Amino acid sequence: MTGSAAPPDAMLALVEALRRLPGVGVKSAQRMAYHLLQHDRDGALRLSQALDHAVHGIRHCERCHTFTEQPVCAACLDPARDTRLLCVVETPADQAAVERTGTYRGLYFVLMGRLSPLDGVGVQDIGLPELLARVREGEVREVIVATNFTAEGEVTAHAVAEALRALDVRVTRLARGVPIGSELEYVDLGTIAHAFSERR
Amino acid sequence: MTGSAAPPDAMLALVEALRRLPGVGVKSAQRMAYHLLQHDRDGALRLSQALDHAVHGIRHCERCHTFTEQPVCAACLDPARDTRLLCVVETPADQAAVERTGTYRGLYFVLMGRLSPLDGVGVQDIGLPELLARVREGEVREVIVATNFTAEGEVTAHAVAEALRALDVRVTRLARGVPIGSELEYVDLGTIAHAFSERR
Repeated sequence: MTGSAAPPDAMLALVEALRRLPGVGVKSAQRMAYHLLQHDRDGALRLSQALDHAVHGIRHCERCHTFTEQPVCAACLDPARDTRLLCVVETPADQAAVERTGTYRGLYFVLMGRLSPLDGVGVQDIGLPELLARVREGEVREVIVATNFTAEGEVTAHAVAEALRALDVRVTRLARGVPIGSELEYVDLGTIAHAFSERR
Repeated sequence: MTGSAAPPDAMLALVEALRRLPGVGVKSAQRMAYHLLQHDRDGALRLSQALDHAVHGIRHCERCHTFTEQPVCAACLDPARDTRLLCVVETPADQAAVERTGTYRGLYFVLMGRLSPLDGVGVQDIGLPELLARVREGEVREVIVATNFTAEGEVTAHAVAEALRALDVRVTRLARGVPIGSELEYVDLGTIAHAFSERR
């Protein structure tokens, strides 16, 4: 509009681009764009470069599918790890959570997603064929399925277990139970029921 | 850490850069980085370019200080506007809100902020000297102070009015009152009190 007080095109394009971030609506995107241009142009340029570097530098590990800047990630190349154990997680964030516990020293397979037929995410998309091929190599003795304990995570765990059933490998699932530090009164009933049936 | 499952450096740099966005914590930043790299690399590149274009293309209008890609913005150059009216707003977003009402056809002065001594934002930072110089040119007959009705916005409005007091110009403030469509029962008491004292 000629003569109007509409924001400049570069601003509108920036707002539109920011809206593609998950959880960012139009108001947040406008606030972010204003903040960057008015108070943090250095931060805006850094973000621009970080995005560019990440997109061009980060690929998937050929072995475990996690994000890496090398053909094979450092964890897969680590000679100190127990190659008989393979932990299946949904995302690199889940992998990082397992890693932080410091109790697991095996290898990982990162699905980079979860089964979600409604969103068009099938077994190909989570790398199930590659997982089977990996297990068929014969070195893995146990696959620990550590997908999330959500509906989609459970469906994914079931699909992984079914796919591996014919192979000579032990398939286990992380234990369900009452979280440490929680009071029974505030724990959901499904969790308590599971903790009962899986008591030891 | 050699052999660890730590995220690649480019990923960590991206998370760090995303955290500089307002309202984005470390968990949100990780989720955004994962989403962009796994599901929307095209969006990531677009955002990278949009940031770069915005930072290099957007400057402040020499007349009203709003964001523009030209030396002087389209609103300031619009010959159809009433140059005797000058509306003072805090941000381009506020300017856009006023503009959307379709009732105001004067010019704007955008403070690009608000007085906030605790954050080190003084009268220089909101362009008060430039506002005074603009009014001294003599064309403006009325300055409509449309800063926000927050504590800082009111302080800013007071400072603007004080600074203009010695000049031969009418200074008005947007009316306070009960918002259209609201029920008195749910309107805060200060607003109702103002609506009473400013009844007409």
